[in-house]
Amino acid sequence: MSKEITARSEDYSKWYNDLVLKGGLADYSAVRGCMVIKPYGFALWEAMRDVLDRKFKETGHQNAYFPLFIPKSFLSKEADHIEGFAKECAVVTHYRLKNDPNGGGVVVDPEAKLEEELIVRPTSETIIWNTYKDWIQSYRDLPLLINQWANVVRWEMRTRLFLRTAEFLWQEGHTAHATADEAIAETRQMLEVYADFAENYMAVPVVKGVKSPSERFAGAVDTYCIEALMQDGKALQAGTSHFLGQNFAKAFDVQFSNKENKLDYVWATSWGVSTRLIGGLIMVHSDDQGLVLPPKIAPIQVVIVPIYKGADQKAGLDEKVMEIVKTLRSAGISVKYDDNDNNRPGWKFAEYEMKGVPVRIAVGARDLENQVVEVARRDTKEKMTLPLEGLAGNIQNLLDQIQQNLYDKAKQYRDSHITRVDTWEEFEKVLDEKGGFVSAHWDGTAETEEQIKDRTKATIRCIPLNNPQEEGKCILTGKPSKERVLFARAY
Amino acid sequence: MSKEITARSEDYSKWYNDLVLKGGLADYSAVRGCMVIKPYGFALWEAMRDVLDRKFKETGHQNAYFPLFIPKSFLSKEADHIEGFAKECAVVTHYRLKNDPNGGGVVVDPEAKLEEELIVRPTSETIIWNTYKDWIQSYRDLPLLINQWANVVRWEMRTRLFLRTAEFLWQEGHTAHATADEAIAETRQMLEVYADFAENYMAVPVVKGVKSPSERFAGAVDTYCIEALMQDGKALQAGTSHFLGQNFAKAFDVQFSNKENKLDYVWATSWGVSTRLIGGLIMVHSDDQGLVLPPKIAPIQVVIVPIYKGADQKAGLDEKVMEIVKTLRSAGISVKYDDNDNNRPGWKFAEYEMKGVPVRIAVGARDLENQVVEVARRDTKEKMTLPLEGLAGNIQNLLDQIQQNLYDKAKQYRDSHITRVDTWEEFEKVLDEKGGFVSAHWDGTAETEEQIKDRTKATIRCIPLNNPQEEGKCILTGKPSKERVLFARAY
Repeated sequence: MSKEITARSEDYSKWYNDLVLKGGLADYSAVRGCMVIKPYGFALWEAMRDVLDRKFKETGHQNAYFPLFIPKSFLSKEADHIEGFAKECAVVTHYRLKNDPNGGGVVVDPEAKLEEELIVRPTSETIIWNTYKDWIQSYRDLPLLINQWANVVRWEMRTRLFLRTAEFLWQEGHTAHATADEAIAETRQMLEVYADFAENYMAVPVVKGVKSPSERFAGAVDTYCIEALMQDGKALQAGTSHFLGQNFAKAFDVQFSNKENKLDYVWATSWGVSTRLIGGLIMVHSDDQGLVLPPKIAPIQVVIVPIYKGADQKAGLDEKVMEIVKTLRSAGISVKYDDNDNNRPGWKFAEYEMKGVPVRIAVGARDLENQVVEVARRDTKEKMTLPLEGLAGNIQNLLDQIQQNLYDKAKQYRDSHITRVDTWEEFEKVLDEKGGFVSAHWDGTAETEEQIKDRTKATIRCIPLNNPQEEGKCILTGKPSKERVLFARAY
Repeated sequence: MSKEITARSEDYSKWYNDLVLKGGLADYSAVRGCMVIKPYGFALWEAMRDVLDRKFKETGHQNAYFPLFIPKSFLSKEADHIEGFAKECAVVTHYRLKNDPNGGGVVVDPEAKLEEELIVRPTSETIIWNTYKDWIQSYRDLPLLINQWANVVRWEMRTRLFLRTAEFLWQEGHTAHATADEAIAETRQMLEVYADFAENYMAVPVVKGVKSPSERFAGAVDTYCIEALMQDGKALQAGTSHFLGQNFAKAFDVQFSNKENKLDYVWATSWGVSTRLIGGLIMVHSDDQGLVLPPKIAPIQVVIVPIYKGADQKAGLDEKVMEIVKTLRSAGISVKYDDNDNNRPGWKFAEYEMKGVPVRIAVGARDLENQVVEVARRDTKEKMTLPLEGLAGNIQNLLDQIQQNLYDKAKQYRDSHITRVDTWEEFEKVLDEKGGFVSAHWDGTAETEEQIKDRTKATIRCIPLNNPQEEGKCILTGKPSKERVLFARAY
């Protein structure tokens, strides 16, 4: 496969696909809308998952696992929920194949029809709350703080690698509480966990906010979200945390006896992030030479490429490089020594640039004589000569600098792409010419929101938390408004 | 729920279910044959998964993720494979629900019928080898060493928690090699990894062997396995590693150019263990008081229960116990301090006995005055007084002793339940009265194997590796045989 990447300026969408495919993150599969996550992409997901999982456990959550299948009738129990999820689901109707008696190969056995169809989970609120009914009797059983790492399926018509796939991997937290206040505090806490992860590990600055009613999760009272900005000026929802009120408890009759020994319905939250985050990560940091990955979640932080002529010179290098590898690994740095003899150094340089490895070290015999190595950073492409003495400390500093630089750069771009507008003319002009978030007044109605979407493809990404209250007029209808909201075109 | 457990001697099967349900490992779900893995059970699976995952990575494997769905036609491409898996699969036929125009709630939308049905993966050889076709061109692309952690579905008619469920969690390794020898070496290596894990982490002794042709994986040339023995004398297959020859490469046309630049089909292996292992773990070690978990994979290694009267005394204890907790954790021991005021110490003792926590420490004010704690081990129920001084080291020694004791005890039971028999009469008698493995001669034919199964429910569990060659006569037919094989009734 050619390693040439389409330039962002030429075709942004093709650039993105090139990065995913040629960077070795994922591949198309034979199943419509489903992708294969390749080892390098999966290692990235594992790194992200490990950080999040630790944070979930630190905040008192435990992992569990619930069934892949949901009885069809469960989906209907919460009225909004069925509206949101019935339209895009994989339906299991039979449980056996058989040889076609007419010689047509293997066919579905009509005698093996399920009494009730099963839906491949698009999200697990229903099956989980049906289970919680058996687990919760008293306030002593609360709070119940559970997370699940799982695959889910939503039958999307138009799919994009990582960003929108029929099957995707995610985590879904589902918690149960004795009071509304506790559940809201949990919802907000998990939003903070996601924001901290996005900003301090993915180096992706996010706006924290709450969704407008039209954009809420199907069945939620409030949906909180973090919104990130891509390099093409489009927004991406990077995580959501829902306050579900008592909706699912009522749908599945989950009541508990409170401290006053009175029965009440349980309060719920759910929250999730998915492999979609990888799509966002790619689009925030990468450039026309390939992926750029933040050191804190990069599967390989440092690659070492030996420069040599002939097997003898290589043998001499190997021994010394293995010492460097050992030193770096002892310092907690993940290192790959690429001593594959089939590829030349130039090919390797291009390969690891494509793969977004934060730091590249090139080592030749003369460098080692001089007790130095040649170091290149992926983000700025800056090169430097560093002494072997104290290398691990210097590389760790460099990794920290790269992490910070990626965040600063993304934040600068994001901050310079939040534009306040007060007229419809400006609104359309900014969306078309500049992109990014547009901060504007809105009259608060779903009708206006929909009209704006129809006319511009922009949606309300969120109403930021701690939004300053300010008198103004809706950009479309001129009706009075008390605060600005953030619009954007989005993935 | 009553914490009373049915005795093994009374009803072994009910004893097992009591342990799973009352020990908090898993629960039944609303979906036929699917279970919910509860937090304590999932923590156990995580501990097992982490060890295995590390071992896979140490032997050069990488994780990846392939689609949940398999196009129906893929299953048919390998002739034996379709025979083995078509009879028990979940079939997705539609991709949308809609509101019933006749008011019957939500129904499958007949217009959203898939052109080709999708099978929820029962195992992933087909979808993976269809993908490998694009990844492998040259010997330089080999070996390809990939593992996947995933959920799979097999529509079993009779299910048991952990032991046989419609959906279960597992890992499946799928590797591709340039030569048969390399693939066979990989198959054997992974069998060793499984055996090492079973014996040194699960404390479960296993027999390593190869399956008879009738018991092979559908599509394999050879199936290697590890077989464990439960306390009721029945065997359980604890892991399998398959040498697939070129069967899947031929079915999916995966060829590579070898070093001589000639095209050849790729050689394959696959290998897997599942949540079924948890069922085996329970049945090998547990007793009539509850679960007994080996320290190396126990989610909680040590529980500390405070003994006090009133809040003042408790406050005094808390501070000192937190020091003990800190000391133990620094030594890498996982500790839970159960200071829940709602339950009395006696209740807690029974609870953690039920949950199989290897070591329980009870701490009262007088103990602390005397600079000691009361320690009880779960396996032997032995109690001892240990000084605070040097506690972490003593507890670690105790955990090591418990691990060793569990293995020794299980091995003694297993070894005393391998019985050599030479006549049909003895064969039936041992199976009925003693159980365990029966080492007997067999004429090597599938017909005899099936007759023996029909008459006794015993199957050939394996032909042990390095089996001594010995002249003998088949216990059923009297025909000549060159080696003994291991029969048993099995889960």
